[in-house]
Amino acid sequence: MWHAPRDVRWEERPDPVVQLPTDAVVRVVAACVCGSDLWTYRGARPPADPHPIGHEFVGVVEEIGAGVTTVKEGDFVVSPFSISDGTCVHCRQGITTSCVQAQWYGGTDPDGRTLDGGQGRYVRVPLADGTLVATPGLPDTKQIPALLALSDVLVTGHHAAVSAGVGPGRTVAVVGDGAVGLCAVLAAVRLGAERVIAFSSHTDRQEVATGFGASDIISERGDEGAAALRDLLGDLGADAVLECVGTSESMAQALASVRPGGAVGYVGVPLGGAELPIKQMFGANIRVAGGVAPVRPYLPELLAEVLAGTLDASAVFDLQLPMDRVAEAYAAMDERRSIKTLLWP
Amino acid sequence: MWHAPRDVRWEERPDPVVQLPTDAVVRVVAACVCGSDLWTYRGARPPADPHPIGHEFVGVVEEIGAGVTTVKEGDFVVSPFSISDGTCVHCRQGITTSCVQAQWYGGTDPDGRTLDGGQGRYVRVPLADGTLVATPGLPDTKQIPALLALSDVLVTGHHAAVSAGVGPGRTVAVVGDGAVGLCAVLAAVRLGAERVIAFSSHTDRQEVATGFGASDIISERGDEGAAALRDLLGDLGADAVLECVGTSESMAQALASVRPGGAVGYVGVPLGGAELPIKQMFGANIRVAGGVAPVRPYLPELLAEVLAGTLDASAVFDLQLPMDRVAEAYAAMDERRSIKTLLWP
Repeated sequence: MWHAPRDVRWEERPDPVVQLPTDAVVRVVAACVCGSDLWTYRGARPPADPHPIGHEFVGVVEEIGAGVTTVKEGDFVVSPFSISDGTCVHCRQGITTSCVQAQWYGGTDPDGRTLDGGQGRYVRVPLADGTLVATPGLPDTKQIPALLALSDVLVTGHHAAVSAGVGPGRTVAVVGDGAVGLCAVLAAVRLGAERVIAFSSHTDRQEVATGFGASDIISERGDEGAAALRDLLGDLGADAVLECVGTSESMAQALASVRPGGAVGYVGVPLGGAELPIKQMFGANIRVAGGVAPVRPYLPELLAEVLAGTLDASAVFDLQLPMDRVAEAYAAMDERRSIKTLLWP
Repeated sequence: MWHAPRDVRWEERPDPVVQLPTDAVVRVVAACVCGSDLWTYRGARPPADPHPIGHEFVGVVEEIGAGVTTVKEGDFVVSPFSISDGTCVHCRQGITTSCVQAQWYGGTDPDGRTLDGGQGRYVRVPLADGTLVATPGLPDTKQIPALLALSDVLVTGHHAAVSAGVGPGRTVAVVGDGAVGLCAVLAAVRLGAERVIAFSSHTDRQEVATGFGASDIISERGDEGAAALRDLLGDLGADAVLECVGTSESMAQALASVRPGGAVGYVGVPLGGAELPIKQMFGANIRVAGGVAPVRPYLPELLAEVLAGTLDASAVFDLQLPMDRVAEAYAAMDERRSIKTLLWP
């Protein structure tokens, strides 16, 4: 429960039950803290009342509503961070984050019900058919971290890469060495990029980037970082730059790092005040694509590779804690002592 | 020659000659006034001294420098509105507008030479090999207007459509009923769009849009226009919106008209003050792509269709004047009495 800036507490709440025919109740097997949770934690928008927090989890279905048909009790499921019906006009276009019935963990539904957060023992999942994806059988415990990365961080990195048109032969630079940026490195490598350059000044994160397949590391930031990239690429920017932070500084670095005619794929939640400089984009034909990742439509393809063991972003979880130490998880990420912290119930 | 706001004059100047081995001198067969010339004409940036103006023309090569190999005396040529070497790192990526040797008609070259404007009897064309495209033979006079449209307006509309990913099955809306917007309609139809909706409140322009294949016309503007579009499309925005004006109002209308996950292709030269609202784009996964059109790489494909008679944007030229009445051409376009005015020497 989020009480106030830098005050997240582990508290007992009533176990959720099915309230609507389209609900499922999921027993959480693993959860984690998102970079966007940190913005909440730091108090960008202080709460009127304490409310549940967290939106990344995997678990086992405990109970389903009468209308649920695609998951059943006992199924192991991955939940995307956004709740969608899977049938509306936007879901059919693959933009489940714009679902006409979209709901958000820790938020409030249209009838005023509080939604559970993903950082807890049980979660009521509305619109379960449109939201959850079940694995064919029960995974091994050692696969859980890689599966958990599918609820947000890996798929968000993947969305940045797809949005920027990453593919074979492309040169890709990644701005942001948080968990999403590192996953964007992994996604770009998976999509066949010829060269993937990670901007990172932290040794531990550089190691993860290299482990995920980054070909080059640049430790400078801002205009110096962009200049170092040009030096590396023979005075040309990257074909694609993946912006995985969300500040105006990181977007400026991304725009300075892309070649004329190239693309910035962005998934960093934009913070206040940042607007895109259209004249700069216009003059150099830079396209900007991305946004809040529609995780659900990407899951079937990526889940198969995770289960096969060929796609594994679990190295971003460099700290694992029991869930009742959630406050410690937030503090560790806030102070950048942990890239991303996994919570076991 | 542009003297001052709303003061363009037809004046005698010395005939240009080859100054550099890479130059060609072209005798202009037809020229025209661009919407972007109007921003100059209206005095956004008043000139220190009178200077040549215009950047859209076709003509016949009169003389070439010793280093020119791809065009010869007597060739009929189309000139893109931007001058490029065709060999630099950006030209090789197809972004000729970002050429490291880029020059602009009516501007100044790196050594301080004034470049001719396209609205004149003769034009010295620097970097002729990288810039000009010759037709296989001499075209008929009746083909000249359609060929002239290749120097900017048709290709700029095409670039908006390509940038927004227009193709078969797509629903496309076009903001702006100037010559570029009308050409964007034609380009979207040519690329196989299933439905092309033109925003226009002027009967004469609506007729051109319909003649170019627009399936629907919406006369409302701004939020009302976007609402009318949603009504037409069953509460969904367009897959692609082509922004062909360049004001913050037109971009806002474009962003309001695109569906979540869709694209805005923009070619309207951005006017001061407009920035892109990244939060709106982020939430709905709207991508924004386009910029100053790299005409040259598009020419071989489009020129072949124009010569075959299957691609003809000449209906945008609703006024034709002798070139010594250039001041009248500007006034007619400035006062919106003409969509686009063609000038015969």
